Amino acid sequence: MDKRIERQLAFSLEIDKVKNVFRQTHLSNSGRNENDAEHSWHMAIMAYLFREYANENIDITKVMLMCLIHDIVEIDAGDTYAYDAEGLQTQKAREDAAKERIFSILPEEQKTEFLALFDEFEAYETAESKFAHAMDNFQPLILNNSNNGGDWKEHKVTAEQVYKRQGRTKLGSERLFEVTEQIIQDNIQKGSLEK
Amino acid sequence: MDKRIERQLAFSLEIDKVKNVFRQTHLSNSGRNENDAEHSWHMAIMAYLFREYANENIDITKVMLMCLIHDIVEIDAGDTYAYDAEGLQTQKAREDAAKERIFSILPEEQKTEFLALFDEFEAYETAESKFAHAMDNFQPLILNNSNNGGDWKEHKVTAEQVYKRQGRTKLGSERLFEVTEQIIQDNIQKGSLEK
Repeated sequence: MDKRIERQLAFSLEIDKVKNVFRQTHLSNSGRNENDAEHSWHMAIMAYLFREYANENIDITKVMLMCLIHDIVEIDAGDTYAYDAEGLQTQKAREDAAKERIFSILPEEQKTEFLALFDEFEAYETAESKFAHAMDNFQPLILNNSNNGGDWKEHKVTAEQVYKRQGRTKLGSERLFEVTEQIIQDNIQKGSLEK
Repeated sequence: MDKRIERQLAFSLEIDKVKNVFRQTHLSNSGRNENDAEHSWHMAIMAYLFREYANENIDITKVMLMCLIHDIVEIDAGDTYAYDAEGLQTQKAREDAAKERIFSILPEEQKTEFLALFDEFEAYETAESKFAHAMDNFQPLILNNSNNGGDWKEHKVTAEQVYKRQGRTKLGSERLFEVTEQIIQDNIQKGSLEK
């Protein structure tokens, strides 16, 4: 086997570990915790399904790729819960080290391509990045809402914290932020979110 | 909320159930059984990563979408193991009923689009379908190989059975079939596959 395909195979096997990185979000019907691979799969399909609601024209292939790869760094860095203030402070340093190690398994030009995609997602500047981030917010939101806000109750999350994070969905999609706001308001009413 | 987005949201929640459909394949490092959402995520990334080895020009977005949605019908139909002769006889009828129910949750034109994608995948005729199927074979192959063929040993699968299934990989990619053949031969040598 040539070196190129060996590296591609090694990377393919390495990312299998993403399936063992578990998140705070629970599956619908109050199921078990969700892992990063499942979350990424769900985001990629939802990106395609909801693409008509993007604020700007988007390259949907690029958005889907961002969704699929954005959590690969968590193989080393672990999942950082959106409302874990302490974890969020060290998140960037942990993820930078991880992205260098993991994407370096790839042939050089694929490493460059995947790093660029990951960095573009993180920078939150392009239309594609904003829409992919909207999915990163919206996908756990609909699961958590289907469980009557159980994840928020468990972590005593406040409406203010949720608005701060989910508010950025409107950078990618005004329409999906309207839905988001309705879901947040419903959960405040039901007492799942502290005011 | 308008009916269109309600249907899109209902579909997004419905497909969460794919994460509870478990396969015969085990994760690397002899981990637990893999589920359909994880398998689909892995296939979609591998399709992008290995696209240079497709026999024909392919629309990679379409291939990735096929990878992401091809197992959604298993929410109702369950997973059918590639070497379960009895299950394979009823698979089509079970999956046809499932695809009608599940994709009907979507707005009409998205239902039509997703059904067409699913049917194109199943028909095994277009370049995209053949390459997506190559991923459907190749992804569990590399996991199983990393576990010294444990899934084959468990089910007493023969080399002939594996060649029959994995042989079709060459319809999508001659190059990935060469790698496949090397992996099969290694596993025959190691005694993981019966001759």
